[in-house]
Amino acid sequence: MAEIGPNTRLRVSPFYDKTVEEGVAAFSPYNRMLMPTSYGHPMEEYRRLTEGVSLWDVAVERQVDIQGPDAAHLVQILCTRDLSDQKINQGKYVACCDHRGVLVNDPVVLKLAEDHFWLSIADKDMLMWCRAIAAERRLNVSLHEPDVSPLAVQGPKAEDVVAAVFGDWIREIRFFWFADAEISGIPVKIQRSGYSKQGGFEIYLLDGSRGGELWDIIREAGAPLGIGPGNPSPIERIEGGMLSFGGDTDDSTNPFEVRLDAFVDLDISDDVIGIQALRQIKAEGVKRQQLGVLLDDEERQPGHLRWFDVHNTGGARVGDMTCGTWSPKLGRVIGFVLVSRDLKPGDRVTVDRRTNQVGGTLCDLPFV
Amino acid sequence: MAEIGPNTRLRVSPFYDKTVEEGVAAFSPYNRMLMPTSYGHPMEEYRRLTEGVSLWDVAVERQVDIQGPDAAHLVQILCTRDLSDQKINQGKYVACCDHRGVLVNDPVVLKLAEDHFWLSIADKDMLMWCRAIAAERRLNVSLHEPDVSPLAVQGPKAEDVVAAVFGDWIREIRFFWFADAEISGIPVKIQRSGYSKQGGFEIYLLDGSRGGELWDIIREAGAPLGIGPGNPSPIERIEGGMLSFGGDTDDSTNPFEVRLDAFVDLDISDDVIGIQALRQIKAEGVKRQQLGVLLDDEERQPGHLRWFDVHNTGGARVGDMTCGTWSPKLGRVIGFVLVSRDLKPGDRVTVDRRTNQVGGTLCDLPFV
Repeated sequence: MAEIGPNTRLRVSPFYDKTVEEGVAAFSPYNRMLMPTSYGHPMEEYRRLTEGVSLWDVAVERQVDIQGPDAAHLVQILCTRDLSDQKINQGKYVACCDHRGVLVNDPVVLKLAEDHFWLSIADKDMLMWCRAIAAERRLNVSLHEPDVSPLAVQGPKAEDVVAAVFGDWIREIRFFWFADAEISGIPVKIQRSGYSKQGGFEIYLLDGSRGGELWDIIREAGAPLGIGPGNPSPIERIEGGMLSFGGDTDDSTNPFEVRLDAFVDLDISDDVIGIQALRQIKAEGVKRQQLGVLLDDEERQPGHLRWFDVHNTGGARVGDMTCGTWSPKLGRVIGFVLVSRDLKPGDRVTVDRRTNQVGGTLCDLPFV
Repeated sequence: MAEIGPNTRLRVSPFYDKTVEEGVAAFSPYNRMLMPTSYGHPMEEYRRLTEGVSLWDVAVERQVDIQGPDAAHLVQILCTRDLSDQKINQGKYVACCDHRGVLVNDPVVLKLAEDHFWLSIADKDMLMWCRAIAAERRLNVSLHEPDVSPLAVQGPKAEDVVAAVFGDWIREIRFFWFADAEISGIPVKIQRSGYSKQGGFEIYLLDGSRGGELWDIIREAGAPLGIGPGNPSPIERIEGGMLSFGGDTDDSTNPFEVRLDAFVDLDISDDVIGIQALRQIKAEGVKRQQLGVLLDDEERQPGHLRWFDVHNTGGARVGDMTCGTWSPKLGRVIGFVLVSRDLKPGDRVTVDRRTNQVGGTLCDLPFV
């Protein structure tokens, strides 16, 4: 394996020094930053997340700040989900598509004020996308990436840790809602959210110079509960059936193919980018679907590097296996496939792992 | 240092296996791929580039393929340089700006036919940018990223190596022009270009399944001339005054600030994105300029990780040092600054390297 570290084109997370102190072992680039992807003890980190509480540097979840008289209009035309009922201090998970109806992001929209929003984005240059659309449509908005860096506290004991730091009032925050708070003079927003199925919060640090302090405060408050460093877990997210934008999607994936139907309101305004293409796709019939696959394989293996071809029992190529992991809960190798709608759960397939062929059975998601 | 390797969101270069065989020691992410940035022997690699011939995996220089009745129009409105005299088989270096006049890329435009172009791009999601503009302006074009991966042969002996493989006719190719060729049935385009001042060619591999073969063919032909692996060299490019888009630019850098005046034709059509903003910037006066800085420092140091603050002799902050390297040719530490137009070559400054303050003298670019 080769090395990577910050360079001038890879911005430094406010929590970077802390993750190095904690022994970060691997990174993945994400939104022009480095996201920790391992601290070298995957099963210990998995157990910490699923049974205890885990602290994640997810500063890579950058915000696109959208403000101005046309901000609400811009946000709505960027998202295929009807946002007319979104309240201030509420977050909503959305799908963003291009004009072809292809997913370009699946951010959480945070409504800060009637004329002020953040898109908390997955890995793609959404600031550039938003700028293109806003300028071409001559909308009166200002757009920038603010100094905001989320720190996630995830796991069944996460709420106790966050309450120990900020007070029991945080227990009342509903899913995807958020509130302003402060600790030792460090300004944050606290949202009940996070890229796991274990529950928890994301603490949006609003002053990048104070990342180390915030890390230490949470680390110390969590010590009695066994908090430790972690990161979005490929094992846990695959078991839990969570989509990885950019990992499980390609340059032609539409929301219907990856179980995001609930986030497409087809009767929304024609101004919404991609909605006309999505209506046509729906009318003509969606071609692919995302399912789980249980491989005939109990051998542990690391997350894979490229999509694998998937074949049906007749030997025809029917799609791709987009991610895979050894599942501690199921005791076998599992993953997601993006395959033809001709297949259904229970069908047998063969996955071409390049080094070998392995059989598998399709199933519904999530796995657990 | 932590590890990095391919994952499903980091596409694999057709030359990846060869770079691993050659002992690649570090990567930087670039256009969602891994670009080799070191083979572990920086001074040897520098000498190979400046005195011999070096072979680079620059598959990260992705192409945006633009084809159709409106292709020439789209390319022109994406670029602030007048392209009306561009010939088929000619490349042109251009600046692409957003509506604010801020640089979003500095690609080479390759004209393949009257209605067919490639943008050979620096690190930014230009396919998404092109799609946004094309769709919003309802242009009749098709856009995609083709299976095209450049392999650079750079250095004073590069021409001899490329001629040994493809024939002496390649010596007639003019700077930035290109031609079709084939070797052992592997289809390529050969362009006289490359991210160094040492001369050479970029060989655009047109079949990603044959990267290893192409690498071996060139490696073998270059063996008598001492060819070896390398990559775009921070040392050589800084000595030579070459701009690194994304490294030396930020989210507010316009072409006038980074010596790209010759690539902005202010009297071009109003349709060109950013041109109206650039006229205004020019009229109001450009604020920053890119100069060299010679530090009072002979100590070798690695390329730096973040921009450093630059102060004038009065102690006021006047800009940033955007890159730095120890220069073998000058025997001292050099770099680029992006500073106020109030300064001029010869002026003294202080650079805040965080660990220490170091004096320096501004100078014109290039250094050598």
